[in-house]
Amino acid sequence: MPPNPLAPAWLALPPDANALAPGLWPANASRTALGELEIGGVSASALVAEFGTPLYVVDEADARSRASELLRVFETEFARIGGEVHVYYAGKAFLSIEIARWMLDAGLNIDVCTTGELAVALAAGADPARLGYHGNNKSLAEIDEAARVRIGSLVIDSEIEIARVAAAAARHGVVLNVRLRVNSGVHASTHEFLATSHEDQKFGVVLGDAARLVALIRAEKSLRFIGLHCHIGSQIFGADGFAESASRLLAVHADLLDGGPVPELNLGGGFGIAYTNADTPTPIGELAARLADIVSAECTRRGIPIPTVAFEPGRVIIGPAGATLYEVGTTKPVDVSGDTRLYVSVDGGMSDNVRPALYGADYSVRLANRVSSADPVLVRLAGKHCESGDIVVSADYLPGDVAPGDLVAVPATGAYCWSLANNYNYLGRAPVVAVSGGQARVLVRGETIADLLARDAGWGHDQRVDTTNNSGSTTAHDGGTTR
Amino acid sequence: MPPNPLAPAWLALPPDANALAPGLWPANASRTALGELEIGGVSASALVAEFGTPLYVVDEADARSRASELLRVFETEFARIGGEVHVYYAGKAFLSIEIARWMLDAGLNIDVCTTGELAVALAAGADPARLGYHGNNKSLAEIDEAARVRIGSLVIDSEIEIARVAAAAARHGVVLNVRLRVNSGVHASTHEFLATSHEDQKFGVVLGDAARLVALIRAEKSLRFIGLHCHIGSQIFGADGFAESASRLLAVHADLLDGGPVPELNLGGGFGIAYTNADTPTPIGELAARLADIVSAECTRRGIPIPTVAFEPGRVIIGPAGATLYEVGTTKPVDVSGDTRLYVSVDGGMSDNVRPALYGADYSVRLANRVSSADPVLVRLAGKHCESGDIVVSADYLPGDVAPGDLVAVPATGAYCWSLANNYNYLGRAPVVAVSGGQARVLVRGETIADLLARDAGWGHDQRVDTTNNSGSTTAHDGGTTR
Repeated sequence: MPPNPLAPAWLALPPDANALAPGLWPANASRTALGELEIGGVSASALVAEFGTPLYVVDEADARSRASELLRVFETEFARIGGEVHVYYAGKAFLSIEIARWMLDAGLNIDVCTTGELAVALAAGADPARLGYHGNNKSLAEIDEAARVRIGSLVIDSEIEIARVAAAAARHGVVLNVRLRVNSGVHASTHEFLATSHEDQKFGVVLGDAARLVALIRAEKSLRFIGLHCHIGSQIFGADGFAESASRLLAVHADLLDGGPVPELNLGGGFGIAYTNADTPTPIGELAARLADIVSAECTRRGIPIPTVAFEPGRVIIGPAGATLYEVGTTKPVDVSGDTRLYVSVDGGMSDNVRPALYGADYSVRLANRVSSADPVLVRLAGKHCESGDIVVSADYLPGDVAPGDLVAVPATGAYCWSLANNYNYLGRAPVVAVSGGQARVLVRGETIADLLARDAGWGHDQRVDTTNNSGSTTAHDGGTTR
Repeated sequence: MPPNPLAPAWLALPPDANALAPGLWPANASRTALGELEIGGVSASALVAEFGTPLYVVDEADARSRASELLRVFETEFARIGGEVHVYYAGKAFLSIEIARWMLDAGLNIDVCTTGELAVALAAGADPARLGYHGNNKSLAEIDEAARVRIGSLVIDSEIEIARVAAAAARHGVVLNVRLRVNSGVHASTHEFLATSHEDQKFGVVLGDAARLVALIRAEKSLRFIGLHCHIGSQIFGADGFAESASRLLAVHADLLDGGPVPELNLGGGFGIAYTNADTPTPIGELAARLADIVSAECTRRGIPIPTVAFEPGRVIIGPAGATLYEVGTTKPVDVSGDTRLYVSVDGGMSDNVRPALYGADYSVRLANRVSSADPVLVRLAGKHCESGDIVVSADYLPGDVAPGDLVAVPATGAYCWSLANNYNYLGRAPVVAVSGGQARVLVRGETIADLLARDAGWGHDQRVDTTNNSGSTTAHDGGTTR
């Protein structure tokens, strides 16, 4: 069978359109004897019977082990060069109280950037000393709250924040550990990086200003400067951008040692993951080894002690541990210049995963309720929103007998999907369930129509929405099934 | 003063960076004697004192009058050619119970596409006969609910839906009015349109299939075919794409008359608005006249009666009636090759307006709490989310003394901002207030941190979030003020 000419160049015709490609799916995803997808020992049909569709599923053991394994690998590689590492989980990727607990259990610290994220981490029982606080525009109240709870560290993003943070720390009688966010001039994306003398962006200060601002920080009795911080991009596959950035930061870091201690260097996050078979991120062990080597070489060259190096991964930990289940509602072959693309519409879309619309992100899809030996066809998985750009998977192959009532699963949706979920077209947000050892439990329940209307001033408390007809469903995200 | 070389070509240096450009702002927006922005007779500072920032403000009188004026203009132009029009407000643009009432009061019908949107319209007291139902993948439960409430009309989007809708109608003993969504092959964007023989998109059926599918619809006793439906794009400035589409649809429409009545032609929505001074949409009266002329000419040429013509505007009604208020938290000049861009960070961002990140949409900004005679500087209004793409206004000029504590307003945020709002970084969604005659009232209240955590299974009902420190604020979207 030849590939479909409408398929993008990166998409290969799969030998088996039922196969769960390694590296793309949660570690505990597999096919049952009957061919169903199961994750954490729970079959797709059992999950859907209990929780409906769309459904965010998180492989708990995978998420926990990705967190602890990443920490172990980085610790090992930096121990090799005589250094230490701190790893902060980037809460923005996907934070719930339970997920925060998993990260803390694994030994990770957590990054937050609003009072809301802080509240989640504290509700998870986090020792505030293990929390880092970010943001280009923290409100005074947020800074005050961070100081009040004795946050472990806080990133100062601009000159104006120095006095704000110092005042809040003094008000609460604490000495706050602070980093200074700098622009290294390095901006990395998936396959390349760009290094310039400056960056036209909202975060941080230029490297040339660092010495002056660190002096201001050090002059504040309520602040303790711990080091520079940078973040060079997102979904990065190689190590070269990190290497260039580390080198540039360590040059300034070395100069700062003249004015006092600089115990840490924070290189941020941005480690990429595979969303499709075409994605080939550098394995985390290799990345850790490269980064340790670079830091070691740069410190040796400059004759400075190796600082504790901090990282802030989010996606690389939680992304691959998640998958989304949908039910197919309609299918429609569309002829494009003599070739056919099959549109497969599901019961979610840009409300539960806005990344394809927002970033042009590619995803993959597989049948979840069964396998099929039907010849694969090129599909586009569309959502149900009233917008033509509402596409979940732009291109993949599925068995040609995919039909209404089938369940499909999209892997690698653990990061930045639920985080960015919205209620476009008054679709309620889907529930999040964790699966482990054959059990599923709700991390965040789905939204009902009553939830969606609760804040509307025109909504009387005596009003009821009848969504309990035929389907028996009362969740807004699940208008019912098409089976 | 020369323009800043970093400014995009479309952005002119304004003679007065305090001016509220006509056509860009709500009709009842003006400067008070002291120079403050006021909308509907309520000053920005009064609004913010009562409701905090960010804040969605809707000029009620403007929204109502845009709705009734659009209907009047279209009715007048189509009466001129001996025809009638139906106007459906596209609920997806911005729907709350109160806004739905305004549209109904103005004589508009309402388009919905989910059980949630239907619930809002019904809660507003809408006669179901005035509602149209859309969607490429309505669930069986949604179709059933639409039939149960005796929806005025429903768009059939694919062949598979014919039997589904017919069965639901029969089950409830009703005859449902249905349209058939077709792809006219015309796809329009702001300044141009593309006409092809087909469209590679999720909505509708190809025109060549219409006759066969309409025959299937007509064979169903529980369905009444009322006409073809199309939608050619969004934010369209000219009439040419609509003209081409109307012409193509009327050719098929004429053929369909052989098999029975075709009382209506639905040309959808997509009428554009101005987001910046550079935007020049065709005035609605001119558009209505052009469309009436085209329909008249095409019907005359084909010797067929003029059908009722239906339109589905959303943005053009509610978009310009809305504005968003923010408070400035930080400012940071960034040198870019010798020129300076001032980053102005506000307390919202891609959570309350994702359109810049999602569509590369441009917006404008003005100081809201005061005017200033300081020389204008090129600014980029950034949000507070942990993402470099979190930009609200990519480029505009503001007085150079803009500073933390200032209020700024972004006009034309009435459509697709609140609709697409999310809780990225656990920021609560901002409240929506209607202003009119010097009074402000809440349409939708803002989200608190307790709202954000309420669905988290790890959240105990005995847990409390202390967000009531310094600022006294208990809303999650307003971490406090920087003044």
